Amino acid sequence: MRAVDVITKKRDGGELSREEIEFFVSGYARDEIPDYQASAWAMAVLLKGMSPRESTDLTLAMVASGEQLDLTSVVPLAVDKHSTGGVGDKTTLVVEPIVAACGVPVGKMSGRGLGFSGGTLDKMESIPGFRVDLSTKQFMRQLREVGLVLSGQTADLTPADGKLYALRDVSGTVPSVPLIASSVMSKKIAAGAQAIVLDVKVGVGAFMKTLEQAKELAGLMVEIGDRAELRVVALIADMNQPLGNAVGNSLEVREAIDTLRGEGPPDFKEHCLEVAGHMLRLAGKVEDLSAAKERAAAALADGSALAKFRDLVEAQGGDPSYVDEPEQLPGAEYIKIVVAPTSGYVAGIHAAEIGHTAAGLGGGRSLKGDAIDHAVGLVVYHKVGDEIAAGDELFAVHANRQDDLTLAEVRALAAHLIGPEPVEPLPLFYKTIENDRS
Amino acid sequence: MRAVDVITKKRDGGELSREEIEFFVSGYARDEIPDYQASAWAMAVLLKGMSPRESTDLTLAMVASGEQLDLTSVVPLAVDKHSTGGVGDKTTLVVEPIVAACGVPVGKMSGRGLGFSGGTLDKMESIPGFRVDLSTKQFMRQLREVGLVLSGQTADLTPADGKLYALRDVSGTVPSVPLIASSVMSKKIAAGAQAIVLDVKVGVGAFMKTLEQAKELAGLMVEIGDRAELRVVALIADMNQPLGNAVGNSLEVREAIDTLRGEGPPDFKEHCLEVAGHMLRLAGKVEDLSAAKERAAAALADGSALAKFRDLVEAQGGDPSYVDEPEQLPGAEYIKIVVAPTSGYVAGIHAAEIGHTAAGLGGGRSLKGDAIDHAVGLVVYHKVGDEIAAGDELFAVHANRQDDLTLAEVRALAAHLIGPEPVEPLPLFYKTIENDRS
Repeated sequence: MRAVDVITKKRDGGELSREEIEFFVSGYARDEIPDYQASAWAMAVLLKGMSPRESTDLTLAMVASGEQLDLTSVVPLAVDKHSTGGVGDKTTLVVEPIVAACGVPVGKMSGRGLGFSGGTLDKMESIPGFRVDLSTKQFMRQLREVGLVLSGQTADLTPADGKLYALRDVSGTVPSVPLIASSVMSKKIAAGAQAIVLDVKVGVGAFMKTLEQAKELAGLMVEIGDRAELRVVALIADMNQPLGNAVGNSLEVREAIDTLRGEGPPDFKEHCLEVAGHMLRLAGKVEDLSAAKERAAAALADGSALAKFRDLVEAQGGDPSYVDEPEQLPGAEYIKIVVAPTSGYVAGIHAAEIGHTAAGLGGGRSLKGDAIDHAVGLVVYHKVGDEIAAGDELFAVHANRQDDLTLAEVRALAAHLIGPEPVEPLPLFYKTIENDRS
Repeated sequence: MRAVDVITKKRDGGELSREEIEFFVSGYARDEIPDYQASAWAMAVLLKGMSPRESTDLTLAMVASGEQLDLTSVVPLAVDKHSTGGVGDKTTLVVEPIVAACGVPVGKMSGRGLGFSGGTLDKMESIPGFRVDLSTKQFMRQLREVGLVLSGQTADLTPADGKLYALRDVSGTVPSVPLIASSVMSKKIAAGAQAIVLDVKVGVGAFMKTLEQAKELAGLMVEIGDRAELRVVALIADMNQPLGNAVGNSLEVREAIDTLRGEGPPDFKEHCLEVAGHMLRLAGKVEDLSAAKERAAAALADGSALAKFRDLVEAQGGDPSYVDEPEQLPGAEYIKIVVAPTSGYVAGIHAAEIGHTAAGLGGGRSLKGDAIDHAVGLVVYHKVGDEIAAGDELFAVHANRQDDLTLAEVRALAAHLIGPEPVEPLPLFYKTIENDRS
């Protein structure tokens, strides 16, 4: 078999066989197929598409390119979640402790932020001492002993995906649904997941801008899961406005702790209960979603989820006193409260603009490996649909450079659309897609 | 400007500006843009196309990536020809001496064969001593003094095309009309051509299989020429059956010499007169094509074209006695005449199969740099439309390995389709496309 023949077959709209996909992916992982063939292939895939069968074979070939964790000795059923990323999305910080507190151990590998989208690892590192670089052995032990782990990728998982992901970034081949879906699913499967809740964000602050695109991606990931014999649920969630109020690393940790205490923004809490409920249901802990959500809410109310979070922080070297006194978290030097310039109804809070503003304050990175400032960010006080009066507090800018304040104020203000007519609130979720196994 | 943005613009079907194309091509030529971006870009170009304006800018950017010859001090108007390649296509060996004998100096850079398609340089190297590696200085001097040069690429012409051409070969991005057209035209323009006759082959033995494809390529090259202010004529010529009778390096040189002597296969002679006629017309030597063809025929009849060919061989270090006694040319050890197994009409002589058979005897190469055997090949005695009787000589196999004889016989016989019903001969040319400057 020759790599160029696999490329031309896809270029001409052909459906690649499992053998062809395995040949190409394993060859690329072993550096036998060069980048210039992989990028031409990725462009052909982007422009010609892949069937669900091809996407599944691609997913499994990427899994096979590296190690694969087997969590069955530690947990009855390995349940995981994945968010496609958004602004103010600190869901993992609340959902995983809830699920663990309900008796379902969760070991999750997360990523870092890039562009206007934050990353769970960056957020957790706001807590002094918190380590995310666990070995596989440490990961397994903590999962067994604490029932909750939140780390970076521990082992040599899906090296083919790692290489291809970096290549796609520089070759214009990122926005391909089969390539995105197989990248997400391969990482989850390699990390040992047997059941997955996918939190697929849609809107101006998400990678998928339209419901159509989000449904396509969610549907393909659910189908890949089905073909790979996993239980998968995909929730299509709104990302037109930020999730919750806080955008920025330590600000989001604080909001997550508030939520674990039973406080926190109602939209974010409800989002977390929905995701946690699906995880509990997939894990077989409860009969149906409504019972699962009740159980999750109880874990918030009785403090057990907060206690799990404290255990997590302590187990990974973080200072647990920050969980009890989150005011210790890194704070910005300058805080400016910005008020509404006019009365009316909040018609839009452009999530991507809010995300870019927070990143511009130093809270995000434009290139991998860039340092970030954990203290800075924005707190947005309203939601689409709120009625406000001129002079009401609209948002707060948290900055460490005084010069940033004005620019951030202007940009975040422009991201707020205030109109004279009443506006319907945005839904939290648009659709749930699941396979027969879930 | 970033390379990835140029790639994504083309990926999404956008039209690249001249600046974007120059940035990409010059960056690639200088190794600032890596192969993996160029191959993704080439795939996007293949699948999304390029306008004539973009194709022209690509052509000129490739010309600008290296040196450009200026022949205006040596010739009144630099006229050149290019064939897209075929089986038995030794046209250059006859046409260029004719044109030079008519007082129009011709300096041509040619290539080597690959796959089932032969190359002019390989053919000429059948003549002992003939050198094709001239310096630019030698090229110019010979053009001035002899009026005829036939060499490999002399200077650092179109390095961007050289890199991209090699990359396309291994990244599945060869069959793109804009990429093929700009590759051909850039090499001709960089070599100093002001007027070009394009001999675009169509059929089973050509790169372009359908008249539609050939017209598209020819039309685009003519338009690029027009936009680059060149006089260009494209002839769309048949390549379903071999051109002439001989297929194989020294066999083709011998057939070319026969033709220069006024003998040779009628189809090949007529093909050469048509191409030569257009070159003479473009060079402004004659009023119209019919007068040009008469003049060209006269150069064959009076021996002046043959004399020019002898001058060419001598000037480039070849032994001119081979021109007078072509039976000295390398001959194969085994020659097998194969006869028609049945009576009827020749309905097809599959050019690609004949080409592959000759290559399989050692006369072609499957990889660049492979050695070739100049002596071997096939001589096909008939043309589509001929009536034949069982037992008539059909073709001869010239082999240097006895084992090859049977396989070549079977394969070349299968390439001959003989049917009971009369068949129309194939035309030599299907269409002529020219721009207003020609």
